[in-house]
Amino acid sequence: MTKTGVGILGFGTVGAGVAEGLLRNRETLAQRLGVEVELRKIADLDTERDRGVKLPEGMLVRDAAEVIADPDISIVVELIGGTKTAADFILRAIAAGKHVVTANKALLAERGAEIFEAAGKAGVDVYFGASVGGGIPIVRVLREGLAGNEIERIDGILNGTCNYILTRMGKERIPFDAALADAQCKGYAEADPSLDIDGWDTAHKAILLASLAYGFYVPKAEVDVTGIRRLSSTDVQYADRLGYCVKLLARIERDGDEVEVDVGPALVPAGHMLASVSGVFNAVMVHGDLVDDMLLYGRGAGRAPTASTVIGDIGDVARNIAGGSPRYRNAISTANAGHLRVKPRGEVRSEFYIRLMVKDAPGTFGCFGTIFGKHGVSIRTASSFPFVPGSEILETIPVVIETHPARRADLEAALAEIKRSGVVRCEPVAMRIV
Amino acid sequence: MTKTGVGILGFGTVGAGVAEGLLRNRETLAQRLGVEVELRKIADLDTERDRGVKLPEGMLVRDAAEVIADPDISIVVELIGGTKTAADFILRAIAAGKHVVTANKALLAERGAEIFEAAGKAGVDVYFGASVGGGIPIVRVLREGLAGNEIERIDGILNGTCNYILTRMGKERIPFDAALADAQCKGYAEADPSLDIDGWDTAHKAILLASLAYGFYVPKAEVDVTGIRRLSSTDVQYADRLGYCVKLLARIERDGDEVEVDVGPALVPAGHMLASVSGVFNAVMVHGDLVDDMLLYGRGAGRAPTASTVIGDIGDVARNIAGGSPRYRNAISTANAGHLRVKPRGEVRSEFYIRLMVKDAPGTFGCFGTIFGKHGVSIRTASSFPFVPGSEILETIPVVIETHPARRADLEAALAEIKRSGVVRCEPVAMRIV
Repeated sequence: MTKTGVGILGFGTVGAGVAEGLLRNRETLAQRLGVEVELRKIADLDTERDRGVKLPEGMLVRDAAEVIADPDISIVVELIGGTKTAADFILRAIAAGKHVVTANKALLAERGAEIFEAAGKAGVDVYFGASVGGGIPIVRVLREGLAGNEIERIDGILNGTCNYILTRMGKERIPFDAALADAQCKGYAEADPSLDIDGWDTAHKAILLASLAYGFYVPKAEVDVTGIRRLSSTDVQYADRLGYCVKLLARIERDGDEVEVDVGPALVPAGHMLASVSGVFNAVMVHGDLVDDMLLYGRGAGRAPTASTVIGDIGDVARNIAGGSPRYRNAISTANAGHLRVKPRGEVRSEFYIRLMVKDAPGTFGCFGTIFGKHGVSIRTASSFPFVPGSEILETIPVVIETHPARRADLEAALAEIKRSGVVRCEPVAMRIV
Repeated sequence: MTKTGVGILGFGTVGAGVAEGLLRNRETLAQRLGVEVELRKIADLDTERDRGVKLPEGMLVRDAAEVIADPDISIVVELIGGTKTAADFILRAIAAGKHVVTANKALLAERGAEIFEAAGKAGVDVYFGASVGGGIPIVRVLREGLAGNEIERIDGILNGTCNYILTRMGKERIPFDAALADAQCKGYAEADPSLDIDGWDTAHKAILLASLAYGFYVPKAEVDVTGIRRLSSTDVQYADRLGYCVKLLARIERDGDEVEVDVGPALVPAGHMLASVSGVFNAVMVHGDLVDDMLLYGRGAGRAPTASTVIGDIGDVARNIAGGSPRYRNAISTANAGHLRVKPRGEVRSEFYIRLMVKDAPGTFGCFGTIFGKHGVSIRTASSFPFVPGSEILETIPVVIETHPARRADLEAALAEIKRSGVVRCEPVAMRIV
């Protein structure tokens, strides 16, 4: 049986998971692949800390260059994270003719074009399945399984930290801060949780999915990103009363030559499959012209689930090497780079949930209703809601509105005018409805 | 760009979907694959009927041999169905050096070993992604994405007809016959629905999944199959009261050297992702040692969703051809053929739902409780339930029992003794709880 040597850069959580999986399931993997995958070296600055994996003597080294230069290593697995050192090592590995497997969404979202170009020139593979969705095989499925589909739409719950916080806010009605503290306690959130809760982790993944689905690199600066830091548990509870769950959603949708890519909290109807996704689990719903709705669900992060996808990628590359040729050099096609563009934020159309804190006086509904109408925003339901316990703003009542589909720019113009009119007492809340 | 010729055998529902997809999304497919896939010929005995697809002049022929013999066709797509003619054509295509894509689960479940052996000798690929789960990429994900996992367990809702009937029985409380008639009306069930409702369609798919996951051919005769034909809406409603949905489930689970493979109606807790799978949709929950729980959900049948997966397979084979070598000749590994075997039906352990129609008299609970205890079946809850409207058996009351995990053989011995004891008035009902 052919043998392929693998080296890992970064012996952190995922690195340890990949090492453990490759060592433990080596035989099964070889049976399935018809190729033997041999873990040869792991590089990490810290060679002392116990990661709970028993490595053969001499496998763990300090110097990444030693892994990249090893002639018996054909596949370099980058699991360092971050965008500086990791990029440097990946480009050096490519230059040395190594195939690369990475789980680094931030790096690919920012410098994917450069990395794939280098790989194309060097004739090597760059696989990145674990950079979106952890254990969920969404990259593979978009690239291969759905190759025959025009992708019409993707909705994803792509950050387990946020989904855990939102699940606790929804099911147990606890406020954001308490839910975040709990997530930190359980190790689901970092000490500095901003990358997760401000939506940027989700945005990096959305950029990769949009690029894969539509064949052009989506510039990070053009993605509309809202996190959940300012989400009030009041709105989570009102959404529940209306029959919705609040989820941090990545939405990607093609409309002619424009592709909408945005990230933000959104209301999902309770019967929808995405509403059943609880806790740290992730899910992606893809709508293709042939396949219709398809959902992939699983653990979006964590040592073993992420390792599962990294090892699946290693297996593909090993088979490619055994077969004599890399296959997906242009892992993200740029065939549509010329004629597709990101839809401007204001042009996005959606149904919206709105909460206004209005003066409790006759004529209020008439006032905001008239302003919405003037801007072409059509109201489906509008109801004043009782205060939730703990709410302490006086002399106002919350009015919750569901709109028919409206342009976001029109909605925002209407909300600005409503604020100027003096009918509301604080900043209106607006979220999409799926 | 390299060009690969494709021929289709069978211009029925799926054949028409594949032809339409290949013609309509040709450009997108070529962009993604880096290979042009060209549909050249379709063979069907009926060359007259309008399938709603506009084919170029001369593409539709009557004789399958003409497709197989065409030197410009490298991939033969078998979509005839059935196990006789289809096997003959597939073996002839393989002998002629053609790669094969098929969606024929019955054929592969019965004669897969023979077909894969022939393909291995001829050095050609046989892809069969659409034979399980229609538009759901479960075959691809098991074979590639989860290659590094030991698969511990698979639970699948694999038949849309049954799931549609069960959804209507559950949500609208209508009896089986009416739900079946409705499914036939809507075109979801055949005039002769036995393959679906007796569980054999699900069993064929379970055999393929088990064989893929564990590397040995599961003999059809050893699979325990129960359909939904005799399922009473009373039990669906009682299950609902206990917080469960009834689903026709394929269950595959490894336990040492034995693999459980069975198909039957089972109770799924309401919060479980599989409980949210409604109507004609299918879903598969896989539990791997690395990935933990993963669910794939989508349309399990139908023209376009099945075509989506068939085209994904065609794309893989086209890339394999362009790369110079077939990759998955032994699509189902037989590495474990020697030492794995199917677990005998009686040895399966599970929690069970049981309904007994007992005499309404003191001592009844003591009588069946003692018998269960004697056979080592431990009761978790036992409650007498009110009759559901329409129930007409007199002088008995329904007692519904949830057990702790028990061996099926012990459960059946207990139920046989309970019947002999005279405490029940009709056949007990027993279903697994997931």
